Amino acid sequence: MIKILVDCFGGDHCPQAPVEGAIAALKKNPDLYVILTGDEAILQAMLADKTYDKDRLEIVHAPEVIGCDEKPTDVVRLKRNSSMMNGIILLRDRDDIAAMVSTGSTGALVTGALVRLGRIPGVIRPAFCPILPTMDGGLVGICDSGANVEVTSAHLRQFAIMASLYMENVYGVKSPRVALLNVGKEAEKGDTMRQETYKLLEETPSVNFVGNMESRDLLSGNYNVVVADGFSGNVLVKTTEGTALELLKKLKKDIYSRTLYKLGALLMKRMFMEEKEFMNYQNYGGSVLLGTSKVVVKGHGSSKAVAVEKCIEQAYKMEVSKLSDKIEAEISKYEHYED
Amino acid sequence: MIKILVDCFGGDHCPQAPVEGAIAALKKNPDLYVILTGDEAILQAMLADKTYDKDRLEIVHAPEVIGCDEKPTDVVRLKRNSSMMNGIILLRDRDDIAAMVSTGSTGALVTGALVRLGRIPGVIRPAFCPILPTMDGGLVGICDSGANVEVTSAHLRQFAIMASLYMENVYGVKSPRVALLNVGKEAEKGDTMRQETYKLLEETPSVNFVGNMESRDLLSGNYNVVVADGFSGNVLVKTTEGTALELLKKLKKDIYSRTLYKLGALLMKRMFMEEKEFMNYQNYGGSVLLGTSKVVVKGHGSSKAVAVEKCIEQAYKMEVSKLSDKIEAEISKYEHYED
Repeated sequence: MIKILVDCFGGDHCPQAPVEGAIAALKKNPDLYVILTGDEAILQAMLADKTYDKDRLEIVHAPEVIGCDEKPTDVVRLKRNSSMMNGIILLRDRDDIAAMVSTGSTGALVTGALVRLGRIPGVIRPAFCPILPTMDGGLVGICDSGANVEVTSAHLRQFAIMASLYMENVYGVKSPRVALLNVGKEAEKGDTMRQETYKLLEETPSVNFVGNMESRDLLSGNYNVVVADGFSGNVLVKTTEGTALELLKKLKKDIYSRTLYKLGALLMKRMFMEEKEFMNYQNYGGSVLLGTSKVVVKGHGSSKAVAVEKCIEQAYKMEVSKLSDKIEAEISKYEHYED
Repeated sequence: MIKILVDCFGGDHCPQAPVEGAIAALKKNPDLYVILTGDEAILQAMLADKTYDKDRLEIVHAPEVIGCDEKPTDVVRLKRNSSMMNGIILLRDRDDIAAMVSTGSTGALVTGALVRLGRIPGVIRPAFCPILPTMDGGLVGICDSGANVEVTSAHLRQFAIMASLYMENVYGVKSPRVALLNVGKEAEKGDTMRQETYKLLEETPSVNFVGNMESRDLLSGNYNVVVADGFSGNVLVKTTEGTALELLKKLKKDIYSRTLYKLGALLMKRMFMEEKEFMNYQNYGGSVLLGTSKVVVKGHGSSKAVAVEKCIEQAYKMEVSKLSDKIEAEISKYEHYED
């Protein structure tokens, strides 16, 4: 039995989305068991009219609510009885729980997981790895994208190894093409740290390193993993999402500005709906924390039930494929430096 | 008379675009004088059938050609007789020349200008500042965006001051709203350098600092200047351009996939052309180097005559508004540290 904890409070569609997502995942995977955290009375009421295997679902009462603008460090320290923080502590303390899924605050989740959970032996720093769809129908993982704003080349090498194993084991990408985010293609581009990382990745047989990537090529489909410091990785991901959203918004506004355009758009309705779905990042699963002792998957705050179900599937695949063991084995082949 | 040098070789549409752009600019501005650099015979042949005021145009013969994949440092060292490097040296040595416009390699131009030109007194590091259109019809300047991959908070404060003055003097933006690129809105976000910069900008009356900006908000129209280290600033700009281009490409491909969509798109033809123009970054002028002793404007490699003309106008406005003097005066109000 694989036990996955689902934080039921925090996202925009809570607790409906996590509860319904969990039930859908239970139906698909007979060896899945879910632990829901949150206000027990509310969760019980929501479950009352649902059919599911009661032997594979458990509720842990954690009634505290995290506010929108609470500081992550305060949440970790003071909100121990919130669905998220209680979840992280359960994940740490209960050997039977394999993973956790949350659609709550990214800052609080990452901070909480880094502070409370251990690391996979050998991993210097866990890293946050969201994925984006590429224009050829593939996927690209960006690692790190926010967990570590200050990094060394040794960290980046580990991010490359972890994200490669992740893309291979969870998304079936054979020998993922790994690039280093940089300001130009040539090996000597960027700061000293970037130049060192380039050399280090060339000397790392565990990684199919294909060179530097300029940020304009992220969606080209030429890369499956992009390695970055958490600061520029975050800029890369958020800028892509922001630009896509703003352009869609502009397109919509412009279409509504003239009847002729509205007519044209009517003929293209199906296409526009497909574009919107293509750019809807919750369709591709959540962002994972790589390198923590247990799996943590962060779903978009706007996740509906299907998106939460996808996050649970992701955590399930990470556990079934024994990703953590593989990371440990691969990382142990290289010298590492404690920070 | 304001003398501006135009590098006529390097871009995709050379030398037609620079030559025609220069002639158009001459017609509009009676006190403008242009110096064209490049192969004299080719330039003379191109000018033969054009009408323009011959007293306000000069050619400097510089026949060497810069290859696409030549290293910037090699270009600066070895290609002194190329239209670009010769241009930079003339700009440095001739007191009568105020500014230079080029559509050649960004790397070579920035490196050449940093190595050969002096700095405005007090400026620690010149910075590269491209501009992007925002969704509300405004503009945002991103400074730095590639000239300095490693920076300190003192550098960032100067970038904020220089870019503010630039947006105000060249684009008429009153009291430009300046943000610091960061991974979150709160003052304590990011690395130590970012936290220091936040405090420093709060204590800088020359700058209308409005706080941290998350990269997804770049096009929102809420900001006129975004201050960043050259690495993440470069990621910010290139990701925006790359995402917009990839999405337009995808849209076009999808439209051509079905007759119904082609029909719909026909009705929206004008709108799609406007979107394309909106996202065509050469419509907004070039990227400028701020802080060098003389003005350098870098046009997109794909610039046509109109875009080159816009770059010349930009350089002209920078000179007429005495931007360099204003930068010197404003920078001198604060302590600065030599690097």
